Amino acid sequence: MEISIEWIGFIAALLTTGAFVPQVFKTLKTKSTEGLSLTMYMSMFVGIMLWLFYGIKIQSISMIIANVVTGGLTLSILVMIILHKKKN
Amino acid sequence: MEISIEWIGFIAALLTTGAFVPQVFKTLKTKSTEGLSLTMYMSMFVGIMLWLFYGIKIQSISMIIANVVTGGLTLSILVMIILHKKKN
Repeated sequence: MEISIEWIGFIAALLTTGAFVPQVFKTLKTKSTEGLSLTMYMSMFVGIMLWLFYGIKIQSISMIIANVVTGGLTLSILVMIILHKKKN
Repeated sequence: MEISIEWIGFIAALLTTGAFVPQVFKTLKTKSTEGLSLTMYMSMFVGIMLWLFYGIKIQSISMIIANVVTGGLTLSILVMIILHKKKN
C-alpha cells in the first residue's frame, strides 16, 4: 500500500474520530446518558469491531488505529449507559 | 480481496451505518437540529469523504458503499443544520 494513501486514511481517521470526541467528553463530564440509545451504541460498537477485524485482514494501519480509538470511545459510552440503566 | 472478508465489511457497514439512521430520521421528522453541532457534522462529512477516497484507492467495495451511504446521511443532516442557522 502506498504511504500517501495511508496519510489520507490518517486524516480521515482524525476527522471522523475527532467528530465523536465532544460527545464522549460531554457524557463523561455531565455523567448524563439521557438521550443516548443503548441499541445504537451497541450496534455501533459491534460494527466498529468488525471494521477493526476487516482493517487487520486487509492490513490497513489507518483503519486499525481509527477503529481501536473509536471502539474505545464507543465502549466507554456504552459502559456509562449500562451503569446508568442498572442504577435506575 | 477474499469474498468472505468483504462480507465482514458489509456487516460492519450495516451496523455502523444502521446505528446512524435513527438520528437522521429523528432530525427529518422533528425538523429540529437543536443540540447538533455544525462543526462536528462538518468534520464528520469531510472525514467520510476521505474514507470514501481511501476505499476507492484500495478497491474496497464495502468501504465504498458504507461511506457513500453514511456520507449521504451526514450531508442531509448538515444541510438541515445550515438551513436552520440561516432561518434564525
